[in-house]
Amino acid sequence: MRYGIIGTGAIGGYYGARLAQSGQEVHFLLRSDYDYVKEHGLQVDSCNGSFHLDNPHIYNNSSDMPVCQVVLVCLKSINNQKLKELLPPLLDKDTLVVLIQNGIGVEEDVQKMFPGTALAAGLAFICSAKTEPGRVNHQCYGQINIGNYSCKNEALVQQVIDEFNAANVKAGQVEYQEARWKKAVWNMPFNGMTVALNTQTDLLLKNPATRQLIREQMMEVIGAAQHLGVKNIDASFADLMIQMTDEMTPYSPSMKLDYDFHRRMEIYYLYTRPIEIAQKAGFNMPKLAMLEAELKFLESAI
Amino acid sequence: MRYGIIGTGAIGGYYGARLAQSGQEVHFLLRSDYDYVKEHGLQVDSCNGSFHLDNPHIYNNSSDMPVCQVVLVCLKSINNQKLKELLPPLLDKDTLVVLIQNGIGVEEDVQKMFPGTALAAGLAFICSAKTEPGRVNHQCYGQINIGNYSCKNEALVQQVIDEFNAANVKAGQVEYQEARWKKAVWNMPFNGMTVALNTQTDLLLKNPATRQLIREQMMEVIGAAQHLGVKNIDASFADLMIQMTDEMTPYSPSMKLDYDFHRRMEIYYLYTRPIEIAQKAGFNMPKLAMLEAELKFLESAI
Repeated sequence: MRYGIIGTGAIGGYYGARLAQSGQEVHFLLRSDYDYVKEHGLQVDSCNGSFHLDNPHIYNNSSDMPVCQVVLVCLKSINNQKLKELLPPLLDKDTLVVLIQNGIGVEEDVQKMFPGTALAAGLAFICSAKTEPGRVNHQCYGQINIGNYSCKNEALVQQVIDEFNAANVKAGQVEYQEARWKKAVWNMPFNGMTVALNTQTDLLLKNPATRQLIREQMMEVIGAAQHLGVKNIDASFADLMIQMTDEMTPYSPSMKLDYDFHRRMEIYYLYTRPIEIAQKAGFNMPKLAMLEAELKFLESAI
Repeated sequence: MRYGIIGTGAIGGYYGARLAQSGQEVHFLLRSDYDYVKEHGLQVDSCNGSFHLDNPHIYNNSSDMPVCQVVLVCLKSINNQKLKELLPPLLDKDTLVVLIQNGIGVEEDVQKMFPGTALAAGLAFICSAKTEPGRVNHQCYGQINIGNYSCKNEALVQQVIDEFNAANVKAGQVEYQEARWKKAVWNMPFNGMTVALNTQTDLLLKNPATRQLIREQMMEVIGAAQHLGVKNIDASFADLMIQMTDEMTPYSPSMKLDYDFHRRMEIYYLYTRPIEIAQKAGFNMPKLAMLEAELKFLESAI
């Protein structure tokens, strides 16, 4: 199939390059790295085997890109307003747009921009970083789960999943709402708390006070999800996430990296929006609302 | 009257010196400054008029101190276990002990150590610092309010208040429980939040997100107080405290100074204890409980 990659960074660069390596036709939108990749190609250093794309299809303007059957949106969610201009050249009535982004509410907002377009959520479990121009460093994990938001063509969703698996990327299908909220159970406590306390996941869990706080914040997310009718989520999922994090190497989530490198943080879709959604449904998340306020304060001081 | 001062720092040094200057007999317990003050006396630089005590009655061991009619305890509350040894030489059955300390629950715990002793709370509204040995810098305010906790001799409490006023220290009597909780309305949000976000009072109020958070935290304290039967406290008191802080010069509360100078913070009586007391009465303070956890994490990293 023909894929378009909007945002060729740590995530889009990795997944797009895997698909290209496996023989799919992949068109990459680049910004700052365009000239470098045009000359040197795209390098992927990966725990699952490193490789190099000598002559990927690259663009520095989406209006030059062809219509694609599948578009992977791998921008940071704070840039989603730009999709109004970036996406249209790649779309026809059958295109599936997969939003590989953090947070809650991105599909709802992108659907408003493109009412007729088929959307899915891509939930990536991956440690990857763009360490220098044209070079992606994929450290560990790598699985992607697809949650269908508004695609009537189920076969197309399944085909994308199959082609990921054929490209050495473990992929599966998940229920959209459940998957987004389950991911938030980890994301909301750890992204913000590592910023607020300038620390890493392991130290938050080592201190008894913050270990308990992290669990209480997870229970706020789980409570909100249950209140919104999400199935298959209860306290045992918080325990599982804490156990999983105990077993991970010390980790700085994406928001911590953004903060450390003085980039804008994804506060809106990671905090503001899910807190609003829960509140409108009558459920409060006081500790995560406090964390949101702390993050807004810290961001204003960047 | 004969006064004993346990802890001759920014607070005890100022109030004790004012009383001595006005002609009261005041006995000071010092630790690190003893030799310096023995040689040079005690200097008070004050916005209400500076002065010097040439030969104050000073001690480096409380067992050498005389029995006093009134003892002002001006230690940081984290050192209250030391009162078991420090206080007895100064007490007879009629001594009034005034705890000029931050937080909720100090009187209850000191009463357990000294069941028969008359206790009162001293609520100081003062900006004062000990800037170098034997030198107190009183910058502004200075009022002290006395809340009677267990003193049957009302006349003695009134006499202390009168003698403060005669010593150029504005003093008044307040209802104990109401005064302690009203002070917590300011103390609990601002002490911890200036530490957690490494900032000052003015910047917390300038940012809309933290301004709202501060008010929500104040409302948690007010809700707890109302739940515990405290009278004369409602939402208007939060507005008053915010307005007052808007009008103050940018300020680092005592906990922020402790943190900046790598000293232990008064987390227990400022957070742990009032949160426990409220919770036992069925009232939760989730945002202040989160702040407590953040402070414990930060303290463990000092």
